[in-house]
Amino acid sequence: MTTQHAHRVVIVGGGFGGLYAAQSLRRAPVDVTVVDRRNFHLFQPLLYQVATGGLGTGDIASPLRAALKGQRNARVLLGEVRDVDITARQLRLDASVVPYDTLILAAGVKNHYFGHDEWAPLAPGLKSVEDAVEIRSRVLRAFESAERETDPARRAAWLTFIIVGAGPTGVELAGALGELAHHTLRGEFRTFDPRESRILLLDGAPEVLSSFPPRLARHARDTLEHLGIEVRTGCRVAGIDEQGVDVCDRGQSLRLPARTVIWAAGVAGSTLGARLAAATGCELDGLGRVKVAPDLSVAGHPEIFVIGDLAHVEHEGAPLPCVAPPAMQQGRYVARRIRARLMGRTTAPFRYFDKGSLATIGRHAAVANFRGLQFWGGLAWLIWLVIHLFYLIEYENRLLVFIQWFNNYITRHRGSRLITELTRVRVD
Amino acid sequence: MTTQHAHRVVIVGGGFGGLYAAQSLRRAPVDVTVVDRRNFHLFQPLLYQVATGGLGTGDIASPLRAALKGQRNARVLLGEVRDVDITARQLRLDASVVPYDTLILAAGVKNHYFGHDEWAPLAPGLKSVEDAVEIRSRVLRAFESAERETDPARRAAWLTFIIVGAGPTGVELAGALGELAHHTLRGEFRTFDPRESRILLLDGAPEVLSSFPPRLARHARDTLEHLGIEVRTGCRVAGIDEQGVDVCDRGQSLRLPARTVIWAAGVAGSTLGARLAAATGCELDGLGRVKVAPDLSVAGHPEIFVIGDLAHVEHEGAPLPCVAPPAMQQGRYVARRIRARLMGRTTAPFRYFDKGSLATIGRHAAVANFRGLQFWGGLAWLIWLVIHLFYLIEYENRLLVFIQWFNNYITRHRGSRLITELTRVRVD
Repeated sequence: MTTQHAHRVVIVGGGFGGLYAAQSLRRAPVDVTVVDRRNFHLFQPLLYQVATGGLGTGDIASPLRAALKGQRNARVLLGEVRDVDITARQLRLDASVVPYDTLILAAGVKNHYFGHDEWAPLAPGLKSVEDAVEIRSRVLRAFESAERETDPARRAAWLTFIIVGAGPTGVELAGALGELAHHTLRGEFRTFDPRESRILLLDGAPEVLSSFPPRLARHARDTLEHLGIEVRTGCRVAGIDEQGVDVCDRGQSLRLPARTVIWAAGVAGSTLGARLAAATGCELDGLGRVKVAPDLSVAGHPEIFVIGDLAHVEHEGAPLPCVAPPAMQQGRYVARRIRARLMGRTTAPFRYFDKGSLATIGRHAAVANFRGLQFWGGLAWLIWLVIHLFYLIEYENRLLVFIQWFNNYITRHRGSRLITELTRVRVD
Repeated sequence: MTTQHAHRVVIVGGGFGGLYAAQSLRRAPVDVTVVDRRNFHLFQPLLYQVATGGLGTGDIASPLRAALKGQRNARVLLGEVRDVDITARQLRLDASVVPYDTLILAAGVKNHYFGHDEWAPLAPGLKSVEDAVEIRSRVLRAFESAERETDPARRAAWLTFIIVGAGPTGVELAGALGELAHHTLRGEFRTFDPRESRILLLDGAPEVLSSFPPRLARHARDTLEHLGIEVRTGCRVAGIDEQGVDVCDRGQSLRLPARTVIWAAGVAGSTLGARLAAATGCELDGLGRVKVAPDLSVAGHPEIFVIGDLAHVEHEGAPLPCVAPPAMQQGRYVARRIRARLMGRTTAPFRYFDKGSLATIGRHAAVANFRGLQFWGGLAWLIWLVIHLFYLIEYENRLLVFIQWFNNYITRHRGSRLITELTRVRVD
């Protein structure tokens, strides 16, 4: 049988995994289609900056079409994948089907509330641009409500911000919120001092940043506390409502009144993972991520790869974390594997090269772990800054982010402090 | 009767009029309260750039609190004014009342559909940040739909953009859309060439930019047509639906299929103007703007001023247009008048100093009229650019806008091309 068309590679998701896979197939004799429900690649590592007004949404988003503009063998299709038909080898979108010869699923993860979906509207997570804008609005609106409030207890609840989850996202959010409340907003209110704000960072684990070496985690905690963040580890959330959070703090039940709660405690694989499991019988881990073969393909389906946050890949006895570097490396790996396969060659299994891990805490404070070399403080922060600027897809973004950063750093100013509304079109 | 408090000046609206009034009262012996339903001052003259992806929302918004941070006699209150009680001299907000000794109403205008409010969801106007983000999403989504469409007629409708109203906003939008379609997006789609897009600029008047001298208006029209914009003057809109626009073009009924329609044809005074008229018996013009006394106060109520777009002020036989310069001058004027009054002095009536008018059309093309001196082309564009950068409230914004502009100019790139969604919080 001869086919008229080139080998069709369809990639679901334009995040780090999907985009790097597409770009790495630049010179391969294939037709690449990137399907995403969003029209932009999002630089998620800086999303917390949007949530705290330090950067605008456009600064960390690059149109997928612009990123793949010059790549003649690639096209972008905006759409939501409804189903994968693994027999007919095609994706079903809302109004069309997209046939594939090779499928790369890089659909990522979603916020996960551990069986408490009712918490979602009360404590938004930080996965999308909309999430970030929503959190930004809630935080700024809380300060505005505090300015209008005359009752001290109610004002205190408006000025209390609880972040659930002390992984890198929670730590970064807490640090940026601390900067906002204790420095940026100083002098802007007349009925209270924003430095009265309480920022609580809760985690059920015994220490923050549990994926980091203990020494760095302790440094991170010290820095957070120095910034005025109340860190409560060994503290589990039992309930969330509009007025606060019920926690179990080292066995004691406690009520924390707060009007703003942010969820940074957990993610779970995209529902496409479950669809795939139902169709192929592949195994999922406890978070709904797909357990893949050593070449990142799905058992029994060498034509289907899963990469990025949605893939469960073991590394040194633990699954890789949901961060950008594994996704990038996996994207490049499957591209190489597809090219090799088309030439009748094979490749070694995927192996993650751990360049290190980084988390920023605030103004010249971060922790970094590079293959055993541990940094903290200003040097780690500088490394963090350079690496993050380097990986921004577009030159323009890199320049703008750098300038805003520099300005925010010097002046402690945060310019993108818009409370925006979600109504569609207003007539009045 | 002695009062314990300083003279209370309450300003409704933090646009050009309200903000300039507040800032001009910096050294006056008064307490200033700026009430706005938004927490930021919006640089409206560049809103069309957000709508076409050239700038991000944060670039043209400055937090009101940041703008008034250093002004110890001023405070900001976030809230929507429900009513004005002119007898008790207080504003009623959602949950509180704000007493005033002097009131400055600078509540601006809203989109106005001339009795066809049913067109509002079909053809959004461009007054708010949300409007701009909505228009940006619609425009970009139309190109995405065209990429998926296989029927040529339906694709053509997706690629047709109709702008109703050829005043400065319509002209600026048309020019920027032309730039987007004919240059920025080139090479980004695989099933069509974005240069096939049709951009129509409709107006019932015989020429575009009717407030400009005829020679400049003709220049503007030539430039627009050179950019590939179809200008249809003497063309009135009879109906708008999801599939297109019905027009009456010089007496002929015509159907224009189009999936994206933008309203730049009219504005009307905020509903607060009507409330004020009901309470004080003051006169409104046909657009619901308040006809004010020569000192910008309301007849019979020297303690109430109306300024900015909401004020109907005659100048050389015509009402002043709804643009920034009159609002700024009026804001400064009422501040001066309030200070003089407190010192028992009087002031001359408000007189508008016409510095000129400007409209940009696109890449180094604009028209400018300075007290009879007429410019067009690159020089007018440069003047336009410098003036607009100069009036941005914050230094940071000025710098960022300049850089984005410079980059957009060199590369024709538009980085803030996000299609964003309006759902509140997504669980999946």
